[in-house]
Amino acid sequence: MTKMADVQSEKDKRNIDIDKVGVQNVSYPVKVLDKNNKFQNTVASIDMYVNLPHGFRGTHMSRFIEILNDYRGLINASNMDDILTRIKEKLNADSAHMEVSFIYFIEKEAPVSKLKSLMDYKCRFIGSKSKENDFILEVEVPVMTLCPCSKEISEKNSHNQRSFVNVQLKWEKDLIWIEDIVSLVESCASAPVYSLLKRDDEKFITELAYDNPVFVEDIVRDISVLLINDKNIKWFRVESINHESIHNHNAIALKEWSRN
Amino acid sequence: MTKMADVQSEKDKRNIDIDKVGVQNVSYPVKVLDKNNKFQNTVASIDMYVNLPHGFRGTHMSRFIEILNDYRGLINASNMDDILTRIKEKLNADSAHMEVSFIYFIEKEAPVSKLKSLMDYKCRFIGSKSKENDFILEVEVPVMTLCPCSKEISEKNSHNQRSFVNVQLKWEKDLIWIEDIVSLVESCASAPVYSLLKRDDEKFITELAYDNPVFVEDIVRDISVLLINDKNIKWFRVESINHESIHNHNAIALKEWSRN
Amino acid sequence: MTKMADVQSEKDKRNIDIDKVGVQNVSYPVKVLDKNNKFQNTVASIDMYVNLPHGFRGTHMSRFIEILNDYRGLINASNMDDILTRIKEKLNADSAHMEVSFIYFIEKEAPVSKLKSLMDYKCRFIGSKSKENDFILEVEVPVMTLCPCSKEISEKNSHNQRSFVNVQLKWEKDLIWIEDIVSLVESCASAPVYSLLKRDDEKFITELAYDNPVFVEDIVRDISVLLINDKNIKWFRVESINHESIHNHNAIALKEWSRN
Amino acid sequence: MTKMADVQSEKDKRNIDIDKVGVQNVSYPVKVLDKNNKFQNTVASIDMYVNLPHGFRGTHMSRFIEILNDYRGLINASNMDDILTRIKEKLNADSAHMEVSFIYFIEKEAPVSKLKSLMDYKCRFIGSKSKENDFILEVEVPVMTLCPCSKEISEKNSHNQRSFVNVQLKWEKDLIWIEDIVSLVESCASAPVYSLLKRDDEKFITELAYDNPVFVEDIVRDISVLLINDKNIKWFRVESINHESIHNHNAIALKEWSRN
Repeated sequence: MTKMADVQSEKDKRNIDIDKVGVQNVSYPVKVLDKNNKFQNTVASIDMYVNLPHGFRGTHMSRFIEILNDYRGLINASNMDDILTRIKEKLNADSAHMEVSFIYFIEKEAPVSKLKSLMDYKCRFIGSKSKENDFILEVEVPVMTLCPCSKEISEKNSHNQRSFVNVQLKWEKDLIWIEDIVSLVESCASAPVYSLLKRDDEKFITELAYDNPVFVEDIVRDISVLLINDKNIKWFRVESINHESIHNHNAIALKEWSRN
Repeated sequence: MTKMADVQSEKDKRNIDIDKVGVQNVSYPVKVLDKNNKFQNTVASIDMYVNLPHGFRGTHMSRFIEILNDYRGLINASNMDDILTRIKEKLNADSAHMEVSFIYFIEKEAPVSKLKSLMDYKCRFIGSKSKENDFILEVEVPVMTLCPCSKEISEKNSHNQRSFVNVQLKWEKDLIWIEDIVSLVESCASAPVYSLLKRDDEKFITELAYDNPVFVEDIVRDISVLLINDKNIKWFRVESINHESIHNHNAIALKEWSRN
Repeated sequence: MTKMADVQSEKDKRNIDIDKVGVQNVSYPVKVLDKNNKFQNTVASIDMYVNLPHGFRGTHMSRFIEILNDYRGLINASNMDDILTRIKEKLNADSAHMEVSFIYFIEKEAPVSKLKSLMDYKCRFIGSKSKENDFILEVEVPVMTLCPCSKEISEKNSHNQRSFVNVQLKWEKDLIWIEDIVSLVESCASAPVYSLLKRDDEKFITELAYDNPVFVEDIVRDISVLLINDKNIKWFRVESINHESIHNHNAIALKEWSRN
Repeated sequence: MTKMADVQSEKDKRNIDIDKVGVQNVSYPVKVLDKNNKFQNTVASIDMYVNLPHGFRGTHMSRFIEILNDYRGLINASNMDDILTRIKEKLNADSAHMEVSFIYFIEKEAPVSKLKSLMDYKCRFIGSKSKENDFILEVEVPVMTLCPCSKEISEKNSHNQRSFVNVQLKWEKDLIWIEDIVSLVESCASAPVYSLLKRDDEKFITELAYDNPVFVEDIVRDISVLLINDKNIKWFRVESINHESIHNHNAIALKEWSRN
């Protein structure tokens, strides 16, 4: 085989550094840590980037996929730093960034019937490494919210709806489990949601929600208070999106916070 | 300019008729009929197809766009047959098919405050013409549904949620307005939804919904009864999708019907 | 516990049969058959429906989830009939329908470097059972297509693009593997696509595509010819969607066929 | 009418400021400025937020919709500041934020046949106002990119694909037209894309692309050079996403820049 031109390695004279260059939406089977079962098999959509200094024309994008293959899909909070280090080395880059989005399942017990079923949570690992490294865990928790205003002004009933609470956080030392974020968020909602509810459970949830009305602002604040009180948390961003049952648009609230 | 090869017009010997060949997801500004304001400007996503008999290798796809340009985006229930005829002629086809998806706005009055606001409805024209021609109007109506079971078994409150009712229909003679389909669907829901509700309105809607609980099956049946009783309707398909506030999955019901 | 009202089991007098009622978008981890590795773990989105005769007001939706739990996510072409039978029994229905959408991974070898990597394919099982039972396997295969007209009329180069070929099929007797559908589709495209290609591979694929130009109509016809020649196939639907690199809209072709 | 409780106005003691609270995905018909035709009617999806100081429990969300109604959908770079001021006043907020996403159409002339057709561009206005005000114009331009490496190493042809270039920018003084951003981006791509191309045009575009190969990094750098050279630009973010025709994943590059 004759030697081929390496166009990507050409000198570049435009004097423009590029912040991020890489691959996006790579589907890959991954094995993530599971609090109760050690590991869980799922499917991820993965983005991998490096910076590109002004002197180089292009990035060797196939190397991202080779690194993924080396790890055979074993990706978690503990080895993300290894993977990012390897990306930096193999692509001769000063910084590396990676996002791994996946569905995570947790077995939940219905409140009265105690029947077990699986609930799905959209999660994401967001890792960056330049001089320092940085890891964010993101979990989206679907919950039920019931409107305090509607309850107060109406003689009976209150409008309620499916809401999506998205929590991103960074911790100091102790790994935080997806299971624990889900529990924390559910404790601040009007009620949790489940895949499997029998009639006894449905009655319980309906009444529980009525006893715990929350505005979209309330749920964000209550979660914020709990996270601020946990000294292990050093940064968070909490967003709640209520798919209001009385409107065709959503109500949202958002809070970002950093321990200084 | 030298004469270019017309590869599409080559003879084809594989003996395979193709049902549909054409363009998909063409964005185009359109002007549709409006019951109260004559016309409404909106933006459509358009699909246009013809059949391709086995003897011809390819279709001249640019002609679809030329036809769209000829009509300058004026597309409605009345001239769809003209457009389809023109597609058949210009592409030498035996059959033509066209789908025009757009957002349609209706000004609605809040129930108590009487404040006016615009609500958006996803609509679609689906037209086909071979020997006979065929026109389907599709309207998706977001509504509020409140669960009769949850109401019955709970001491207070009932879970309720945003639901999407999708109606497709064909009529005999008299054009049916999007506005009328929306009203019909809302009359079968627990309550309509609005863009703008003040507190008086919110109280009204919350209480109205509690007085009109419907299962996903009920809303489909109640709409079906009304459509069957309208002799102008010759076919319909009604689907309701409830974004259940107690689950992270949806409940759906579907009914298709034809007058014989 | 006091006995609760069973609102769903109430008599219904509106005289409207409902075609389909059930749950939609249930996320669930599944284990599907894999030609080379026996089983593959992936994540599915599941829809489950039954018919509802006119005399009954509602369906007991939680039973769908209980059945899913009984099978612990083991779902494939062979036991789909069992699952549908169980749905019919447990929900007292005359017909049952189920759709299971998932991402399936196949290890592919790059054409020159022989490096291995995983490619993702969107697949679906569609099963129905009333008197007879019916099973459709759907596979979406991303490929590269290169335009024969652009090649013919241009002095150099030809526009090419990512295309998505969606094949649905039913067979007579012998189970068909996802792997075999992917190979069949790729053999009719300008070139296959891969996750990992080194420069030698990229050169190979680029030249291969130029030597095998296909219109969207060609790929649908070539696949049709192969499927018709396989006596084990009794029905198919093939659709190709080309994300044309010279337009912002897509070109599509569609063929449905049944052995009689 | 009796006086209703104003739950939103209750005192809040959790001591948590909320960064953003508001409405999301409000569909609304809008009239935006058009360089050649003064105005263009289109449909927007609108998000509107304010901050919420720690002392107040909730926001009066219906006021956002009332403000939209006051402006009757006339929204553009010039009056965004007015609208944000009005939001701040009406909701007693220190800061307001608004995003208006819409499809914008530009009539383009095919390069050889000179036939005219409409191309659609996804655009967004992003406005913020606290002490200072801030306005970002975002335009997504679909183009054709052809790979320089594939061209160099292959004896014939080069892989090419549809790419999406997303430009966000802020200017000093002179309003920048969507039309001008589209032209600038197209001048840095391998070729523009069109809705309507006859064979002469297709030949032209195919050959043009082959003469102008660009990596995803090149297109971002070439656009950056042009924007930096325009003294009216004070900030930009350019991202290019190539839907690679040889892969099922995307290649991306991103550059953010600020004049200091």
